[in-house]
Order: sequence, then structure tokens, then C-alpha cells
Amino acid sequence: MFVLSSPSGAGKSALSRRLLEVEPALAMSVSVTTRTPRPGEVDGVHYHFIDRARFEAMAANGELLEWAPVFDHHYGTPRGPVEAALAGGRDVLFDIDWQGTQQLRESVGDDLVTVFVLPPSAAELERRLHTRAQDSDEVIRKRMSKAAGELSHWAEYDYVIVNDAFEAAFASLRAILAAERLKRERQTGLTDFVRGLIRDLEPAG
Amino acid sequence: MFVLSSPSGAGKSALSRRLLEVEPALAMSVSVTTRTPRPGEVDGVHYHFIDRARFEAMAANGELLEWAPVFDHHYGTPRGPVEAALAGGRDVLFDIDWQGTQQLRESVGDDLVTVFVLPPSAAELERRLHTRAQDSDEVIRKRMSKAAGELSHWAEYDYVIVNDAFEAAFASLRAILAAERLKRERQTGLTDFVRGLIRDLEPAG
Repeated sequence: MFVLSSPSGAGKSALSRRLLEVEPALAMSVSVTTRTPRPGEVDGVHYHFIDRARFEAMAANGELLEWAPVFDHHYGTPRGPVEAALAGGRDVLFDIDWQGTQQLRESVGDDLVTVFVLPPSAAELERRLHTRAQDSDEVIRKRMSKAAGELSHWAEYDYVIVNDAFEAAFASLRAILAAERLKRERQTGLTDFVRGLIRDLEPAG
Repeated sequence: MFVLSSPSGAGKSALSRRLLEVEPALAMSVSVTTRTPRPGEVDGVHYHFIDRARFEAMAANGELLEWAPVFDHHYGTPRGPVEAALAGGRDVLFDIDWQGTQQLRESVGDDLVTVFVLPPSAAELERRLHTRAQDSDEVIRKRMSKAAGELSHWAEYDYVIVNDAFEAAFASLRAILAAERLKRERQTGLTDFVRGLIRDLEPAG
């Protein structure tokens, strides 16, 4: 389970999207939210857009691995698709904030790799938020202020990437995923493989 | 500090050599040994070839980070060049066996990343040892038997790479190095960087 967090505007969504394109063994965890879709957002792809009553029912039934309010809306991670992907041998990518990351760690334990994406500067973060042009000035101010709060949790993450240039940041992200898959304890089947090697190497008799 | 171990013939030396070519911020730790050079080996590049008296003096003076006998000869890692490289902000690559790795961990503590390289099969390991053609059949038999002992320590390493195809194994090795450098605690200066970001994001006053 691979968690990517950052203040909005740091480039996390573009990095996730590209990673999913090139990594077929990686499944995206699609969050549920009670907010309305932004222009271009597709239900079931960017989020599952649900109403407040449905959200509260899912939370009450233990169907959410983590959930939290953000501004006036609720966001959460449905449990079912994550468990299905893991059972099918796929890794799961989560695009969630620091609160979600903390709750997820409580839900699923330590088998979690967490990456924090930093913007190269505050000015660049603001420029990217304006370029996105989906939000009013007021929402952008809110996002800038929220970014400062989000950034204060950077030290709770395993890895940190400064997203100055997209291609370099993307290469860093892929390296982390590749390296984590090479960790001894994640490579199932190695014990039998090495036992076989040793048996074949030792002189018979 | 980046340790690469494997039975001889698994491809560790070729992987190290290539990694040093493409990673200028990585310095090789050149071991000292009391054995004589093999054809093609250069003093100061592959090993520092020294006599037994000099070796014992270095060990007695604490100039070796680790040392051990292998067959009839002694091998060790000189402390000075490692400390100089680290002080200069470079990472250091060690091509040492499991005993050296254990001793190095005792000498330098936990800031050690360890990678074990496995051959794809016992038959392939034997084929590679014969192809290398530097050793007598008797030495090859000794190496095969030693390989089994070396392999039994695979589970003491952080990462495991099966060297089936060189290019893929090399990409894995680079990914591990890149990812380890992205670990939060290895990126010095991030605390000040994030503090600056937060200061610039928070509304003045």
C-alpha cells in the first residue's frame, strides 16, 4: 500500500495518474466524497460522488478505511476495493492527506509506504493553483492556508520528493515503488527459492 | 553506506562497476587483501594488495572497519577512505561478504543499506564461474560450496535482487540507491526548507 500526500497544487494528482499508466500492477484507491464534482471530474474515476446519508452509512458499517471532513465536505476510502486489489496481488495507491494517512496506518498496520510531495516554493504552489483555474480566489486562499497545515506533517512520511520538475519527480516516485518491491520481506517465495539454490549447490551425499 | 553482497559469480562485481560509472556521488570502498592479484587485477583499483604483516598492523591499529579470513587469505575494509568520502558528502559502496556486513554494522551502526544479489539458479552460477575461467576446478568447487554458505545469510539483508538479466538487475540496484536517498531522514536541509515554505504560505500578520 503506497500513500502519496501533499498540499493541493504540489503535483500529486499528475504524478499518481502517470504512475498508474505505467504500472499495471498498481490499482488506484478511489475515494468517496460528499462534495459535488469539479468540471472534468468523472464519478468512479476521480471520486465516487455520494450523498451525506450514504457516506454516514458507510462510515457506520465499517466500510471506510479512513475518513475525515475537509472544509465543508467529507472524504473517505472504501475498504472493499482495497482488499480486493491486495487479494489479487496488486499494490494500491492512495491519494490522501495526512489525517487519512494516520488513520490508514491505524486501520492496516505497518505495511504502508508513505511519500510526501513538496512544492519547490510557496510562489510556485500559488502559481499552480491559479493555473488550474478551477477555484475561486477565496478557495485558493483557503488552499494556501491549508497547505501550510498539511506541510507541517511532512516529517510523518517515509520518503520526501520535491516536485520541481515533473519528469525528475516522477522518476523518483517510480524508484521508490521499485525499491520497496525489492525489499526482502515483500518478496514472497524467496525463502523457497534460496532453499532450492542451496540444495543444488551443496555436494550430494 | 551501501553494501552489496552475493556469492561470487552472481554478478555483484559487474553491477558495482557499472553503478560507479553512472553515479558520480558514489565512492567505492577498496578492500585490502593479503592474496596475490588475479590476472587483470590492479593494485588500488580492485584491491590494495598488502602483505600479512601490514594487514595485521592495520587491524591492530583500528584502521579496518571490518576484516575476516576467506580461504587462506585475509580481507578487510580500510577506515580512512570511507570516512573521507562520507565527510565529502559522497555515499560509499562496499563489495563485501556477510561476515563483513555484520562487522560493518557493528562498526558504523544502522546507517547502512544492504543488498543481496542472488544468481537465478545453481547451474547458472556454476556456468558463470567456469566462464570467468580465472580459477582452477578445485577453486570453483570451493566457491560453489562457499556460495551455499553465503546464500544462507540472504535474510540478513534489506533488499534482494535476483540477477537473471544484467540490465534489469542493474535498474533494480539504481532504484534502491535513488529511493534510499529520498528517505526523509537522509535528506539533510529539508527541515529548514519546509519551515521556509510554511512561513511563506501563512498569511502575514
